[in-house]
Amino acid sequence: MLIVQKYGGSSVGTLERIRACAQRCLESQRAGHDLVVVVSAMAGETNRLIDLANRLRALGRGDEVTRGKGPYVAVDGAGDPVHERELDQLVSTGENVSAALLAMAIHDLGGAAISLVGHQIGMITDRTYTNARIKELRGDRIRSEVAAGKIVVCAGFQGLDAEGNITTLGRGGSDTSAVALAAAIDADVCEIYTDVDGVYTTDPRIEPRARKIREITCEEMLELASLGAKVLQIRSVAFAMKYGVAVHVRSSLNHNEGTWIVSEYRSMEAPLVVGVALDRNEAKVTLARVPDVPGVAAMIFNRLADAGIVVDMIIQNASRDGTTDLTFTVPENDLARSVAELRSLHYLGSGGSGSGEVEILSDPEICKISIVGVGMRSHSGVAARAFQILADEGINIQMVSTSEIKVSVVVHEKYGELALRALHAAFGLDQEPASAAS
Amino acid sequence: MLIVQKYGGSSVGTLERIRACAQRCLESQRAGHDLVVVVSAMAGETNRLIDLANRLRALGRGDEVTRGKGPYVAVDGAGDPVHERELDQLVSTGENVSAALLAMAIHDLGGAAISLVGHQIGMITDRTYTNARIKELRGDRIRSEVAAGKIVVCAGFQGLDAEGNITTLGRGGSDTSAVALAAAIDADVCEIYTDVDGVYTTDPRIEPRARKIREITCEEMLELASLGAKVLQIRSVAFAMKYGVAVHVRSSLNHNEGTWIVSEYRSMEAPLVVGVALDRNEAKVTLARVPDVPGVAAMIFNRLADAGIVVDMIIQNASRDGTTDLTFTVPENDLARSVAELRSLHYLGSGGSGSGEVEILSDPEICKISIVGVGMRSHSGVAARAFQILADEGINIQMVSTSEIKVSVVVHEKYGELALRALHAAFGLDQEPASAAS
Repeated sequence: MLIVQKYGGSSVGTLERIRACAQRCLESQRAGHDLVVVVSAMAGETNRLIDLANRLRALGRGDEVTRGKGPYVAVDGAGDPVHERELDQLVSTGENVSAALLAMAIHDLGGAAISLVGHQIGMITDRTYTNARIKELRGDRIRSEVAAGKIVVCAGFQGLDAEGNITTLGRGGSDTSAVALAAAIDADVCEIYTDVDGVYTTDPRIEPRARKIREITCEEMLELASLGAKVLQIRSVAFAMKYGVAVHVRSSLNHNEGTWIVSEYRSMEAPLVVGVALDRNEAKVTLARVPDVPGVAAMIFNRLADAGIVVDMIIQNASRDGTTDLTFTVPENDLARSVAELRSLHYLGSGGSGSGEVEILSDPEICKISIVGVGMRSHSGVAARAFQILADEGINIQMVSTSEIKVSVVVHEKYGELALRALHAAFGLDQEPASAAS
Repeated sequence: MLIVQKYGGSSVGTLERIRACAQRCLESQRAGHDLVVVVSAMAGETNRLIDLANRLRALGRGDEVTRGKGPYVAVDGAGDPVHERELDQLVSTGENVSAALLAMAIHDLGGAAISLVGHQIGMITDRTYTNARIKELRGDRIRSEVAAGKIVVCAGFQGLDAEGNITTLGRGGSDTSAVALAAAIDADVCEIYTDVDGVYTTDPRIEPRARKIREITCEEMLELASLGAKVLQIRSVAFAMKYGVAVHVRSSLNHNEGTWIVSEYRSMEAPLVVGVALDRNEAKVTLARVPDVPGVAAMIFNRLADAGIVVDMIIQNASRDGTTDLTFTVPENDLARSVAELRSLHYLGSGGSGSGEVEILSDPEICKISIVGVGMRSHSGVAARAFQILADEGINIQMVSTSEIKVSVVVHEKYGELALRALHAAFGLDQEPASAAS
């Protein structure tokens, strides 16, 4: 098999762990596989580099700046394309360092390896610095090095635009690099190594009976973003779906099977529901008595989009007396700003042109629970069953939104965990599915 | 004017100093010049990266390795081309980081700048990893960015081989990058910024009356390597000579004129002697009573060359009774090894095939003093004058070697400083030359 393996920042966080990765690579090769490896920067390195850039900017302003802390250092100067170009030239070096070190470690262990960076890999992107999109990947060099028996270690996260400027794919972009690479060289599987065992049916910190999912489709994974985002960059899943790459998310600390993210279930029957996710970071806004005339909704959501606020669920009730109620959810952090933006809309702030005043109500104390499964496509009644389960627990449903493979409900924040556990159990997620036991 | 400016590791060693470099770049631009800048890695960064590689190798051997110290960290694994390729991929990132940071700093100060790294610069080298030779430099991208009014900040020290593998030019290679770049884009001058004021007539720590040289030819600079090597990589001088690049070595800490390294003196008359250098790191080996037959010298020096020992001066005395005395100097650190190599030569060790035994004498307590100046070409008697000055001081001369523009003598180590001061004064180096006062 031709395998792409991706090792994240914590997997290459120390020289000892780099050596462990090298050993793992060699085991795969000895098992008869051809191997292309994609690495992130050593844990902390990207932040160190961003921090250098931030402190340099602060010098210019005469600010006192202390070293950045926490998992992610905020980027100062975002939105300035000249600065962002240089940021990409700067931070891409982090992946180059780990790629070279991993190749050295494989060589030290007696293996044949070569590291490749941006221009050697041939990944062409657009010019959206710090968050570029892949346009083309020429795998010639990679293929010829693999054919020569080498383990090819690629620096993840980075690409080049058409003029050779370095671009990066956004936080966690190495996952996307790996999947794109797997697609370009037609690999049999893309293994994403991380420090967890795979994707779970729900958050094990809330429901200890959560079970590792053996197999999940890309579509489901995308809908379960809030579960999956901790495990792999969700954009890489869209890529895997588009190019039909089989992704295997697994731990770099053991040899257990992890979770396979696939285009279609290999087992005969898809499970009805594959996972349940809880999102506590949403808040609800209701606009009551909005004049029910064309263009009002567009005006409202354009304003929010212009302010960079991502609206999730939108519900509009049936019209009554020429007005309607419009309810939607936004990230809880953006709630105050959303309300301010809406008030500043002359049309709403002044009471609109219709009869009566538009009322803006907001509620941060909500959460969203999503049930996901491609099996819903062929089985009606999943939504109804979910509503019944919540009713049995005495939980009031405030909003509902459904797609072909997802049912999301908004409930009061205090019921979130209860609702999650009830649904997890009722859809049998704590039990190994029979169809996957083969 | 089109100027190439090169800033070394200490000039970009901190964010504050990077900002100071940015200001200096902008001053040059405001004075009406077009600017291409070449940077080294931030001081300490190259060593940090080499140290990572060394510690990774040590892990493989189970060694206890403490972090490298001192100005230069020795490279472990040198001579292994696979490892050296990865080392180049690794250490070249140091220059990429400083190039991006300097471009950011210029941008922060309101200037227009762009950083370019290896594949964007287009410097093609051979494949001698860690010590590559430049073959070609396509300056298209640089020229077009300069034409667009930008200060172009290039990562020094690195190139690409014909297949796009990253190569580096050896320690201090950023000087060579800068001179090569200046040649490729036909710059008017290549300014090498460092933490000293320029090249001195001799080492000011030995002779406080040493004077900064205003102008020196490339040939002289090459002969004065032991003075110049502290200021700029001597290979860059060979490059400057070949391509006729005017190099101006100056301090990044002030605005004083430094030393111009030129193809030919711009002033009417070349000084007779431009500088005096003292090299304490040589040792002397004498082979007494070597059979005076063809092939013996070749055998001896081939053996030393095979062992990687660099022989400097070689003197053979006139033959007497069918034998001759052969004397040469080697680096003091290689003395013991040199003697061992010679003893292992069956021909010498067994007493040779001639009459009597060959005797191997060694003496580490010597030093070499060199007087350099292109003016010697047209003025005879410089050597004789030097011998007289040393005789007047009661200093015995052990070896003499001359070239068109250099006289070197070997004396006992204890006379080194005295000889240097005597020659420095006698040739008037402590006085400003009349011809350069214009």
